[in-house]
Amino acid sequence: MLPDRRNFVTIPAPTDVHAAWLPEEAFRPVGTRRTLVLADGLLAETVRAEVAAACARYGGSVRQQAGGGEFDLVLALSTAEQPVEVAPGECGAEGFALAHRDGVTVVVADEPAGLLYGLFHVVRLGESAFGAERPVEWHRPATPRRMLGHWDNVDPHPVMGQVERGYAGGSIFWRDGGPRGDLARVRAYARLLAACGVNAVGVNNVNVHATEAHLLTDRLGDVAAIADVLRPYGIAVHLSVNFAAPIALGGLPTADPLDADVRTWWARTTEQVYAAIPDFGGYVVKADSEGQPGPFAYGRTHADGANMLADALAPHGGVVCWRAFVYNHRQDWRDRSTDRARAAYDHFAPLDGRFRDNAILQVKHGPMDFQTREPVSPMIAAMPSTALAVELQVTQEYTGQQRHVCYLPAMWSEVLGFRPWGRDGRSVADVAAGGGLVAVSNAGDDPYWTGHPLAQANLYAFGRLAWAPRLDPAAVLDEWIGLTFAAGDPERLRGPLHAMMDGSWRTYERYTAPLGVGFMVRPGHHYGPDVDGYEYTPWGTYHFADRDGVGVDRTRASGTGFTGQYPEPWSEVYESLEECPDELLLFFHHVPYGHVLHDGSTVIQHIYDTHFQGAEEAEQTRLLWEKLAGAVDPALHARVRERLDEQVRCAGEWRDQVNAYFFRKSGVPDARGRRIP
Amino acid sequence: MLPDRRNFVTIPAPTDVHAAWLPEEAFRPVGTRRTLVLADGLLAETVRAEVAAACARYGGSVRQQAGGGEFDLVLALSTAEQPVEVAPGECGAEGFALAHRDGVTVVVADEPAGLLYGLFHVVRLGESAFGAERPVEWHRPATPRRMLGHWDNVDPHPVMGQVERGYAGGSIFWRDGGPRGDLARVRAYARLLAACGVNAVGVNNVNVHATEAHLLTDRLGDVAAIADVLRPYGIAVHLSVNFAAPIALGGLPTADPLDADVRTWWARTTEQVYAAIPDFGGYVVKADSEGQPGPFAYGRTHADGANMLADALAPHGGVVCWRAFVYNHRQDWRDRSTDRARAAYDHFAPLDGRFRDNAILQVKHGPMDFQTREPVSPMIAAMPSTALAVELQVTQEYTGQQRHVCYLPAMWSEVLGFRPWGRDGRSVADVAAGGGLVAVSNAGDDPYWTGHPLAQANLYAFGRLAWAPRLDPAAVLDEWIGLTFAAGDPERLRGPLHAMMDGSWRTYERYTAPLGVGFMVRPGHHYGPDVDGYEYTPWGTYHFADRDGVGVDRTRASGTGFTGQYPEPWSEVYESLEECPDELLLFFHHVPYGHVLHDGSTVIQHIYDTHFQGAEEAEQTRLLWEKLAGAVDPALHARVRERLDEQVRCAGEWRDQVNAYFFRKSGVPDARGRRIP
Repeated sequence: MLPDRRNFVTIPAPTDVHAAWLPEEAFRPVGTRRTLVLADGLLAETVRAEVAAACARYGGSVRQQAGGGEFDLVLALSTAEQPVEVAPGECGAEGFALAHRDGVTVVVADEPAGLLYGLFHVVRLGESAFGAERPVEWHRPATPRRMLGHWDNVDPHPVMGQVERGYAGGSIFWRDGGPRGDLARVRAYARLLAACGVNAVGVNNVNVHATEAHLLTDRLGDVAAIADVLRPYGIAVHLSVNFAAPIALGGLPTADPLDADVRTWWARTTEQVYAAIPDFGGYVVKADSEGQPGPFAYGRTHADGANMLADALAPHGGVVCWRAFVYNHRQDWRDRSTDRARAAYDHFAPLDGRFRDNAILQVKHGPMDFQTREPVSPMIAAMPSTALAVELQVTQEYTGQQRHVCYLPAMWSEVLGFRPWGRDGRSVADVAAGGGLVAVSNAGDDPYWTGHPLAQANLYAFGRLAWAPRLDPAAVLDEWIGLTFAAGDPERLRGPLHAMMDGSWRTYERYTAPLGVGFMVRPGHHYGPDVDGYEYTPWGTYHFADRDGVGVDRTRASGTGFTGQYPEPWSEVYESLEECPDELLLFFHHVPYGHVLHDGSTVIQHIYDTHFQGAEEAEQTRLLWEKLAGAVDPALHARVRERLDEQVRCAGEWRDQVNAYFFRKSGVPDARGRRIP
Repeated sequence: MLPDRRNFVTIPAPTDVHAAWLPEEAFRPVGTRRTLVLADGLLAETVRAEVAAACARYGGSVRQQAGGGEFDLVLALSTAEQPVEVAPGECGAEGFALAHRDGVTVVVADEPAGLLYGLFHVVRLGESAFGAERPVEWHRPATPRRMLGHWDNVDPHPVMGQVERGYAGGSIFWRDGGPRGDLARVRAYARLLAACGVNAVGVNNVNVHATEAHLLTDRLGDVAAIADVLRPYGIAVHLSVNFAAPIALGGLPTADPLDADVRTWWARTTEQVYAAIPDFGGYVVKADSEGQPGPFAYGRTHADGANMLADALAPHGGVVCWRAFVYNHRQDWRDRSTDRARAAYDHFAPLDGRFRDNAILQVKHGPMDFQTREPVSPMIAAMPSTALAVELQVTQEYTGQQRHVCYLPAMWSEVLGFRPWGRDGRSVADVAAGGGLVAVSNAGDDPYWTGHPLAQANLYAFGRLAWAPRLDPAAVLDEWIGLTFAAGDPERLRGPLHAMMDGSWRTYERYTAPLGVGFMVRPGHHYGPDVDGYEYTPWGTYHFADRDGVGVDRTRASGTGFTGQYPEPWSEVYESLEECPDELLLFFHHVPYGHVLHDGSTVIQHIYDTHFQGAEEAEQTRLLWEKLAGAVDPALHARVRERLDEQVRCAGEWRDQVNAYFFRKSGVPDARGRRIP
C-alpha cells in the first residue's frame, strides 16, 4: 500500500519522508495570496523562499519591495516602514507582532528570525489569519533556549545502537561511523523544528564515546556541515563533549579543570569550533554520571568543571549546558537510607551562585529519570542564582517507546505550571525562562520521523510549549491535527484524535505506574513490565513492596528526608500522608495496601482498578482508530494500527503482571471480582 | 606476574596455553622408562609420539619391535604376541586390558584407540603403574559415544557472541566469521580430550545461524581441517546442521523430510561430507526448538525428521543426534495448567520405536534446562525402543558461569546413578550406554581453557564419567589434582582442593536454588539472582511464590500431572508430599512457607538457613584458597582468587536477594535473628 503523496514533501532524499506538520496543503492560505517581505539576510531569504514555494503551488505572489500593488500579507522588520508601526526593540531577538488591519495581515519583528516564526504562525492560523480585524498581539518566546538533544551515536553502540533510547529507526545525522550524508533530511527536520519554535539542536549523544569525542576536533567538519543546513532555519548547533577530551584528544596528562594547560586546550579548541561554526551554540556535558568522566576525578566541583568550559565559550557568546543528572548508580539496595532522588540536589544545591552566567545547569524535570510520574525536581527551586534549563524527554523511553500512544504535553504542562514556592510563587516555566527548555528528541530516520506517527505530536508540542509554556496541551494538539491532516479532513479527525490522545499519558500511567511508583520495567531496554526488575539492583530505583505495603518513605520523619529538599509549602505537603497528592503517594510514603486514598479507594484496590481501566482504555483507543480507516492515508493508518495492536497486547501484560504481583504479595482479592491471574 | 612455565605445554600458538591435566611432569613415570609399542596405524603413531616426547624429556626410550632388550611398559594389540595373552576381541573397539607382571606393565587392546586410552591410563596411575604386581584388569567405555558439543558460532552472534553460553573467551575453532586458523590449539584440545576419554566433538552451535549452515557444504573444508587434527586422538567430528538447509543451501522449495528431492539432497550432501571426512561422526540437530526450523512446519513428526537424516548417514556409518529439547517458549504464564517440564515427554514418548537405529535421541538430563537442581528427566525411562543419549552441561550456564567454583560431577554422578524404575532397575547410565553421553563444553580460547582454572576439573571429569559412570566424583577430582598439579606439590593441595570443590555444587545450590526451584536468574545472560526474572515470561519457568507459599504443583492430583510421566516408584514418590525428596519439593509441590521438611525445618527457614550457609561456604572457599598462595603457580592463583572474590560478592547478593524476597513475601522472620535486608 503506497502512502498518499499529498502528505509528503518532496525533498532530495533516498526515500519519501512524511511531511509531519508541514504538508503542502497547510501553506495554501499563504500560497494563494500576495505577500511582501521587507527584510534582508539569511533568515529573510528563508521566509521568502517558503512563501515563494507556496505561491508556486497555489498561484500567489511574493515581493520584496513595497509599492506597485496591494498585499494581503506583509512581513517586515521593525526598522522598515510597516503598517502597524511597531517600534524597534519591542519584539526582541525572536519575537514578532501580528495584526490584521484593513485587510492586510502584518507580521513585524526586530530580527529576521522573528519574521520566520511569524510566518509559521500565520501558517498555523490558516485562513483565519486573513479574516477579521486583529489588533496587534505580541509573540515572544518564553525562553531564548529551546533545544532538542539527540542521543545519536556516530558509531553504533554495541548495546545502545545508533540512537540511544531511539525508537524511530536510525539517526538523521549519523550512520555506521560517519555522517549520514543525507542533508536534505536534516534540512527538512530544521524546517519542522522552526515551525514549532525550536532554535537549538544537540547533534550527538550526551554519553560521548570514542568516535563521537572527535566531533570536537578532527571531525568538526561533519558538525559544521550540519550547522550549515540548520542555520537558514535559525537553529544553532550544540555539541556533547567528553570531559576527558584534553586527555583523549589533546594528549594532555590530565583533564583537571583548574589546570592551565587544560584550560588553554579548551580555549583553543573552542576557538577552532567557532572558526568553523561562527554561530555555534555551545557544549552539552554529562560528567561524573553513569560512568562518564568528570571533575570529581580531580577533586574539583561541578562548578569548576562547568566554569572552565563556560570561560572557553564566553568570548564567542556560547553556553555550556551542564547536566545535573549526577547520582550514584552503584547504590546498595539494602541501605534504605540512601535515595537516588536526593542526588542532584545534594550535589548541586551547595554550588548555587558559583556558576558563570553562560554556564547553564540542565535539570531533569523530576528527581529520578523521566518516569511516567514523578514530582517536580526540588533542584528547580534550589538554585536561585544559577541559570537553570529544564530537561524533558520527548523520546518515549519509559512511556511506551513510540509503540504506545502517549501524548506527553499533558505531563509537561503540569510540570511547567508547577509552582515550587506555592501558588503565589514563580512556576517551573518561569525558572526555565532564564536557562531554557531542553528535551531529548524522538525523531529518527523513520519515514514518519518518530516511528509512531502520532508521536509527531509530542515533538511538535515540545517546541510549542518551549515557546509558550502556558499553552493548553489540548489546544496544541488541535493545532497539530489541523496542520498534519490539512490535506485530509481535520474536522472529522479532531474528535477521535482528542479522545485517543488528550488523556493518553494518564492512560499509560494507569496501566503502568500506580501512585508514583516508577521503574517497574524490564531492565536495560526499559520496555514492558517487570515489577521487581530494578528492585534489587544498584540503580537506586525501588518500590519496597512487601506483603504488607508498598512505597518509598522519603519523609523527614522516618524516611530518607527527601521531602526536606522542597521549599514550603511542598516540603510539608509531601511530608504529610494526608496532604500528599494521591498520584505521588508511593513516591513519598510507604503505606499499607489498605491505606485509603482521597477518593475512598484503598491502595491495593486502586492498583487493580487503574490497571483494569488503563488496559481497557488502550483497547478503546484502538477501536477509535479502527473507525478512522478511510479518513487518513492508508499507510499511516496501517502503521498506527500495528502499533496499537502492540499497545493493547502490552497493556494487557502490564495489567496482568502488576495485578498478579500485588495480589500474590498482598493476598487481597479484587473487590469487583475480576480475574487476576 | 608471569605464569610458571612448567605448567604450560609449548605448542605453536600465539599465546601460551595452560597444560591442564597434561603437564610434562605427568609423563615423567613413562618418560623415564623403556617402552615397547606393538601396533601400527595412525593412533599407534600417536601413542609412540606421546611416549617419545616424554622420553626425550626424561631419558627413557621407546621401540616398536620386541627383542634386543627389556621393557618396563609394553603397549600391544591383542593380535600381537604379548605377555598377558589377552585374546583378540576381548577389549572391544576402544577398551584395553592392563596388568603389571614380572616387572613389566602391559597394556593390550584390540585397536590402537585402546592403546591410546591405555597409555593415558598409565599416565594417570603414574609411578604406581610400575609398582606392585597387578592382575589383568579390563577397561571398557560404558558407551561408544562420549561427546562434547561446542555452542560455537562462526560469525559472532549479535547477542550470544562467538560462543553461546561460553565463559572462557572465544572459540578454539572459529573467529570473526571464519576458521580460527590456530590448529595447534585444537590439537592440544584433542589431546586433553583423549586423555580423559572423550571421542567425539561437535564443532558448532546447535543453534545453526546463516553462516554456520554453510559448514555443511561450501565451508566443509574448514570442518575437514579440524577433523584432520582431531583424528590422531581418536576424536570424530560432528556437525550441527540446520533442518532448513535444503532450502537455504540447496535452493529447494521445501525441507519436508518426506519429500523425495529433500531426501536426495541430504543423501548427496552427506556423501560429499564423507568424501571430505571419511570418519565423520554425524549430525546434531536442534529442530522446532526456540525458533529453529523443524519437521512440524510440514506436519511431520520428529521421527520423520530424524529418520531422514539417519537414512542419509547410514550408508557411511554416521549417526544423527536429534535433540529432544522441544518445548513451547511462548507459554502463557497465566495458564497454570501448562508445564514446560512435560514437553519433551509429550512430544517424543509417543514416537518410541519409530526411530532408526542410527538416530539417537539426545535428552537433557532434567526436564527443564540444566538447572542447578532438577529431577532426572522422565524421558529417560519413556523410550525403551529408542537409542537415547543423555546430555549434560559442562559449561556453567546456570551454575556460576565459571566465575563460581562448582564441581558438577557430584550432580552428574547422582543423575547417572539414578534408577528410574526403582532400585532394582537400570540406571540412567545404563540407558545412556546405548546412545551416549553428551555435554556442552566449557572450553574456549582462554589461556586456562575454561576461564576459571578449577573448571578444568569439570571438563576432565565429564570425560572420565562418560567412560566410567560409576567412578566416585571425589576420586576423579583426586586424579585431576594429581595430574594437573604434578609439577608442584599435589599432596599439599589435595586436602584444601577437596574441601573447596567436592561439595561446591551443593554450596552453589544452597545460595541459589532452594528445594528444586530454578530459573531465579537474570533473564538473558542467566547470571546472578533475579527471583522474579522469569516469573511472568513466556519461557515456562515459574515458582509461583505468593504471600502464602511457593513451588509448582506438578502432581496428578491437583497440578500439571507431570509426576505421571515417571514409572513407579517415582511417579508415587514425587506425587506424595510426604515422600518427595526435600531437594525437589518445590519442583513438584506448591506448599505453604510453614511446611515442615524431613529435617524438621520449615520451608521458609530452610530458605534462610541454606542461603546464609551457602554464602558463608563461599567465603570459606576463598579462605582455603588464600592459604594456598605459594603452593600453586602465582598467575593461576591470582586468576582463581579474582574469581573467588566475584563468587563471594555474588553469593552475598544471592543470599540477600533471595532472603529479602521471601521475607518480604512471607513476613516470617528468621528464627535465628540474622539480618535480612
